[in-house]
Amino acid sequence: MPRVALRGAMSAYEALVARVRRMTALRDAAEVLAWDQQVMMPTGGVEARAAQLAALSATMHEILVSPEFGRLLAEAEREERDEARRAVLRELRFFYDRETKVPGELVEAMSNAASRGYEAWVEAKAKSDYKAFRPHLERLLELKRKYASLVDPNVAPYEALFQDYEPWIPLADARRNLTELRAGLKPLVEKARARGAQRPAVLAGSWPAEKQEVVSKRVAELIGYDFTRGRLDRSPHPFSAGGAHDARITTRYYDHDPVPSILGTVHEAGHAMYMQGLPKEHMGTPLGDARDLVVHESQSRLWENHVGRSLPFWERVLPMLREAFDGAPRASAEEVWRAVNHVEPSFIRVDADELTYHMHIALRFELEEAMVAGKLSLDELPHRWNETMQRDLGITPPDDARGCLQDMHWSSGSFGYFPTYSLGSMLSAQLMDAYPGDPNDYPSLLQWLRDNVHRHGKRYKTGELIERATGSALTPHAFLRYANEKYARVWAA
Amino acid sequence: MPRVALRGAMSAYEALVARVRRMTALRDAAEVLAWDQQVMMPTGGVEARAAQLAALSATMHEILVSPEFGRLLAEAEREERDEARRAVLRELRFFYDRETKVPGELVEAMSNAASRGYEAWVEAKAKSDYKAFRPHLERLLELKRKYASLVDPNVAPYEALFQDYEPWIPLADARRNLTELRAGLKPLVEKARARGAQRPAVLAGSWPAEKQEVVSKRVAELIGYDFTRGRLDRSPHPFSAGGAHDARITTRYYDHDPVPSILGTVHEAGHAMYMQGLPKEHMGTPLGDARDLVVHESQSRLWENHVGRSLPFWERVLPMLREAFDGAPRASAEEVWRAVNHVEPSFIRVDADELTYHMHIALRFELEEAMVAGKLSLDELPHRWNETMQRDLGITPPDDARGCLQDMHWSSGSFGYFPTYSLGSMLSAQLMDAYPGDPNDYPSLLQWLRDNVHRHGKRYKTGELIERATGSALTPHAFLRYANEKYARVWAA
Repeated sequence: MPRVALRGAMSAYEALVARVRRMTALRDAAEVLAWDQQVMMPTGGVEARAAQLAALSATMHEILVSPEFGRLLAEAEREERDEARRAVLRELRFFYDRETKVPGELVEAMSNAASRGYEAWVEAKAKSDYKAFRPHLERLLELKRKYASLVDPNVAPYEALFQDYEPWIPLADARRNLTELRAGLKPLVEKARARGAQRPAVLAGSWPAEKQEVVSKRVAELIGYDFTRGRLDRSPHPFSAGGAHDARITTRYYDHDPVPSILGTVHEAGHAMYMQGLPKEHMGTPLGDARDLVVHESQSRLWENHVGRSLPFWERVLPMLREAFDGAPRASAEEVWRAVNHVEPSFIRVDADELTYHMHIALRFELEEAMVAGKLSLDELPHRWNETMQRDLGITPPDDARGCLQDMHWSSGSFGYFPTYSLGSMLSAQLMDAYPGDPNDYPSLLQWLRDNVHRHGKRYKTGELIERATGSALTPHAFLRYANEKYARVWAA
Repeated sequence: MPRVALRGAMSAYEALVARVRRMTALRDAAEVLAWDQQVMMPTGGVEARAAQLAALSATMHEILVSPEFGRLLAEAEREERDEARRAVLRELRFFYDRETKVPGELVEAMSNAASRGYEAWVEAKAKSDYKAFRPHLERLLELKRKYASLVDPNVAPYEALFQDYEPWIPLADARRNLTELRAGLKPLVEKARARGAQRPAVLAGSWPAEKQEVVSKRVAELIGYDFTRGRLDRSPHPFSAGGAHDARITTRYYDHDPVPSILGTVHEAGHAMYMQGLPKEHMGTPLGDARDLVVHESQSRLWENHVGRSLPFWERVLPMLREAFDGAPRASAEEVWRAVNHVEPSFIRVDADELTYHMHIALRFELEEAMVAGKLSLDELPHRWNETMQRDLGITPPDDARGCLQDMHWSSGSFGYFPTYSLGSMLSAQLMDAYPGDPNDYPSLLQWLRDNVHRHGKRYKTGELIERATGSALTPHAFLRYANEKYARVWAA
């Protein structure tokens, strides 16, 4: 048995995990390089960095598609009975099957189409020229349909794509939840429109970035972000990156308003605190990795919305702002809190409030599912976008730049990503309901999340993780109850 | 011929170079990660970073030792006649033979001994406790002798180690040059000692780091460092890292003196401008890589010493300092220039002036060669160090921390590295002699270095590169002439 001899005394599982650890270390290296590219790299570095990332990704792919990897995986699946090990194998099997079912040429074609699509989108958005972007969208849809038919021929193509972002929530469940969420939020959004209030101008002024940065760092520390295992920098698009040992965040600063950098920091710190809470002893295997996008987003949104948009939070952050900005703002914590929670239909998803946000997601979900299924002609997309927005939010975008061209997701073929944002919000509310302690005791809240979510990594499928943590399946009820109660208070005279 | 079929229409050379490019991209990725570790990484990231770097280095090693790599290399050597390709193959052969002759266990043993040696050295140096470090030094020497006997059994072990840093300069030539340099500098050092002058205190004051940083950036730009392909950050030990597309530098700031950060920046920018001048079209092969340590050091020292310690340089930098520091320093450019060029024997190599520096190197070269040859007992080392320093510089270190424990090189087994510093200085002076233009016209000087050194990468062996650029073999004469002329001026009343 030369194969056994080669791996010495290691079981198939151990030999497999050695390969997985190597692959994960290379993936983590690529993530540091991607962070550096966004935050530190000089403009001239693009070409060399692309070569580095391509070398890493080719190497990871080769580890996975080597015949030995498949054999070890199958052998370990036959041998292992331990529950944790079987969880590792379940996750590896999912990933392995996806990666090995897609021929290299299709991967390359998707990657090229995504690069070209992104570039075309940047230009098309700047000129609000949907026609220029349309052929790229068509090509991306075509390739992604092909991809979907290969990775999971047993489900509709859109479901196969959704699984890339959320492998363990059936699309039917997601759809039912999203539909219920939209219906439940409709009356609240109507109410906000009927009130017709303007956002209070309590934060007007000039807010230099350097001072905002000081406040952002204090706020991140306040909620429990560990700077010995992370750092806060600036980037045009805020993001988080890394793992348990080193989970970094970025934010951006607007001179006219200090709130976006604070809530952006809290959001990204939410993601990063999840990573910081992953079990270090499992570094390099799925047990040491974050569950997928829905759970990740539940963490960022829990801290951003349930904590960062609460009155007690602003009672604590206001003195920090005043210390940094010579006494400004003069408004009371309650006034700032009301401003932060202002609800008003608007065109741009990323600027939307906590309620209308989900109308933006519902719209994208509806349209992208129809596009992937070939039920929505691309000629019709801008019109359908505007029509749906008028139906759900009562406003019509003045141009496609503020309509169907606003998000970058589709430009690189990310169909099926949007729903995870709203599903994450639902889960935040469920987790807050399940948490038995004082919501304003951040160390206690963080510890509860560590115990009930973070420390499990990918040990449980998403549904099981949610049931274990909250006592029920994923549902929009907690979020709707939270929203109704909260806005009754916000809107009380 | 299944092998040919596998690589399709590619020649052996092309198939080989594809592997080399992959390997180089992974090495470049590792260099970015190492930069990040020094400059950006939070303290908690150490363990994960070690896993990432280990995965990269294992992957690079596997590419090299695969049987296919050796076969392609041999086949390409038989097939290729093109001069540039033969240069690539020469460099690959050297590297390949070294890497494949050393068994993995020895590599691991050296790596472990280096890590432990470094840690022990940090502690031993802090306590000035040579005895605690001695067993580590012994172990490192033993392993390195074994290594030397494997990589090149035809030369003395010290020469085999020297080749790791400078493969194409025979040790006999290096020794002759270093001996002549020491002899030639002796009278100048004596003269400096006889003058007995103190360093003029023209730069006394407080120099906040933020303002020094502004000046350092302007100075780097002044000499031609390209910030679109680099950046300047802070680190405890200044270094440079990267390649043609992205060559970064670091420096450190002392509150009591603005000169070290300026000259440190100029030194590291000299290294980085070499990288920025490498031919981009050869990225990923030896033709796109810097020649070895002597040529690299010639670039940093040319800019640091021949430019950065010249009077016209300070005439240009002084206004920058004054602009940043509200008019300080008040001293004239000539006074600052004299202070910057103060010569005085001292214990610490890295703080030494341009002349006594080479006495420090000569001492290390003499002792390390004897240690590797087993002709200097480790019990004798501290004593011999002090004796030699007394002989060459007329001073005796008060303790081993300021004596044989001061440098980190030996603590990780880097025997044979030190000579490249002095050889680099010699080459700087030769290059300045050969350069036909105005030494104070930095763009012209940089362009000449680009044309005569940078653009060649590793195309020529070190000796041939030097002959082509300067018209002669490596020699200390240019440096000695420069030193005599310069210090005659510096020391003129």
